[in-house]
Amino acid sequence: MKIIVDGMGGDEAPLHIVDGAVLAAKEFQDKNEPHQIVITGPKEKILGRIHHCHGDALLGKYLEIVHTDEWIEMHESPVSALTKKTKSSMHLGMEMVKRGEADAFVSMGNTGAVMAVALMRLGRIEGVARPTIGAFFPSMNGRTLILDIGTNVDCKPNHLLQFALMGSVYVHAMYNIENPKVGLLSIGEEENKGDDLTVKSNELFREKKLFDFAGNVEGRDILNGTADVVICDGFVGNVVLKFGESVAGFLKSRFRSVAQKSFKNKLMMLLAKPALMGVFKDMDYQEYGGVPLLGVNGVVIIGHGSSSPKALNKAIHVAKEMVEKKINEVIREKIILS
Amino acid sequence: MKIIVDGMGGDEAPLHIVDGAVLAAKEFQDKNEPHQIVITGPKEKILGRIHHCHGDALLGKYLEIVHTDEWIEMHESPVSALTKKTKSSMHLGMEMVKRGEADAFVSMGNTGAVMAVALMRLGRIEGVARPTIGAFFPSMNGRTLILDIGTNVDCKPNHLLQFALMGSVYVHAMYNIENPKVGLLSIGEEENKGDDLTVKSNELFREKKLFDFAGNVEGRDILNGTADVVICDGFVGNVVLKFGESVAGFLKSRFRSVAQKSFKNKLMMLLAKPALMGVFKDMDYQEYGGVPLLGVNGVVIIGHGSSSPKALNKAIHVAKEMVEKKINEVIREKIILS
Repeated sequence: MKIIVDGMGGDEAPLHIVDGAVLAAKEFQDKNEPHQIVITGPKEKILGRIHHCHGDALLGKYLEIVHTDEWIEMHESPVSALTKKTKSSMHLGMEMVKRGEADAFVSMGNTGAVMAVALMRLGRIEGVARPTIGAFFPSMNGRTLILDIGTNVDCKPNHLLQFALMGSVYVHAMYNIENPKVGLLSIGEEENKGDDLTVKSNELFREKKLFDFAGNVEGRDILNGTADVVICDGFVGNVVLKFGESVAGFLKSRFRSVAQKSFKNKLMMLLAKPALMGVFKDMDYQEYGGVPLLGVNGVVIIGHGSSSPKALNKAIHVAKEMVEKKINEVIREKIILS
Repeated sequence: MKIIVDGMGGDEAPLHIVDGAVLAAKEFQDKNEPHQIVITGPKEKILGRIHHCHGDALLGKYLEIVHTDEWIEMHESPVSALTKKTKSSMHLGMEMVKRGEADAFVSMGNTGAVMAVALMRLGRIEGVARPTIGAFFPSMNGRTLILDIGTNVDCKPNHLLQFALMGSVYVHAMYNIENPKVGLLSIGEEENKGDDLTVKSNELFREKKLFDFAGNVEGRDILNGTADVVICDGFVGNVVLKFGESVAGFLKSRFRSVAQKSFKNKLMMLLAKPALMGVFKDMDYQEYGGVPLLGVNGVVIIGHGSSSPKALNKAIHVAKEMVEKKINEVIREKIILS
């Protein structure tokens, strides 16, 4: 299998990115697995970083570079990405997936640009109205996948239905959950509670019976783990995601201020620090490596711009598994039948 | 001043409710302030609880009871509350405010019913399209008031504009903030980011210049304290509120599981417990006592069904301050001028 890594996607790319790619390639070598990582981006820079990571010996077999001098900045507009940067590390990688020269594409870059370039180069899976991006939240039962988290706003019930179907297929295949429970995010459990979109979507979900619909769930159910997949409009999903991401930082600052109140508090906090760090690690979204662009006609994984090498390595493995499990083929079949 | 307390509003009412009312009445007595708490509900039950709280001596001057055998259950529908329970502790209390026999009404009961009964008995402040309920979140700077948190879904830009105006007046008066910053909750800071409602609302907020508009804010800005007041549709607000309320419970369970991993962890957690509790206390919404029904033609404060006596006492003080500062009069003037 050949997996492309966007060498210039990420807050400090190619730093961390190349490091993660080298980590994954070493693992393939160690396990004698016939897979290859292809990094797209400026050859000299990337070679320098590979050398720094002691990965030179991997080149040629487990690691390769496809050179380009262009890349899309983290805050560049999708329009600019599409029109002005057609030879970017992102475009080149997607193009290789499109031509069948590679099996998957992984980027820690500009999410809007990744989606825009994927839509232009790879297109949508037949029948999918709007591809979607989700995020994993930690939960009492392990994790909750929330879809959509900002790619799609002002959705229609049919969009939410497709998000639910794709999310259910993904979680079933990747986490071996027989019948993933799908919840519809609303402001009350009763089917008539919510805004116009959720009331209509609840009706459609019940009528279509395409997945194990657990009915409406509320904000608290995300961390409680009431459902494996939680569906919402991208506006709501994005607000909750960003709120959730800010919780750890907020708590750390509160812990610091409690610690400063007295010497006794300071001592207690110092003693408890390793355990506290364990809790915060559980809340670290990077642990999930990355999430797929569901509904795009090709395997594309996107992760945080601030991803660590470990997170990138994890994202590469997520991409590999998604290819192996033929998730897009299953989605295609299910969407046609819906 | 006469403040009505809904004796049967609350998860375990009249427990905690009467206790909190006695607490407040004792404070009025201690400070020799000429205020009175009136508890509406079944006289025998309430008298029994007052006796239990050693509050008998307050009766007649600082504490009074208005008897009724009817009350609205915590999960009763607003329709049933309006049509079948017209002599409930809630109706009676609001009626007294309406007739000018009391200055404010406080309930820890069924939020939907409180809003419905308030709208029926007290009506809206002239010009207000939709009254709103908010909630306080802790923030790096103290607190953030979010409006709306579930009373109003499928809002129009003009509704959000009025929420913002009323929230700004409330925070200004209650927290002595000269020009409260108002943020519009969206999924990007740029004014063209968001869904249809927020893009149009951003334009309206800028055009009307009725308050200090800080532009769009994101989910993370709620805890970061970027704005004093954050405005959103009630659907989004409710999801974020319930998600936020679930964070402390989720963390406590994580702390327990980290503690169970080893004896060393357990010891660390035990040592740190008092400091951890300090942090969680900061996140306790009860600390704010209650929130007003903004836009209703009378002072009505609503709080959590699980409120402690301390929280009820706080809510009574919030009601008192809202009357003293003539907040509804200021809202009326500003709405007319808008």
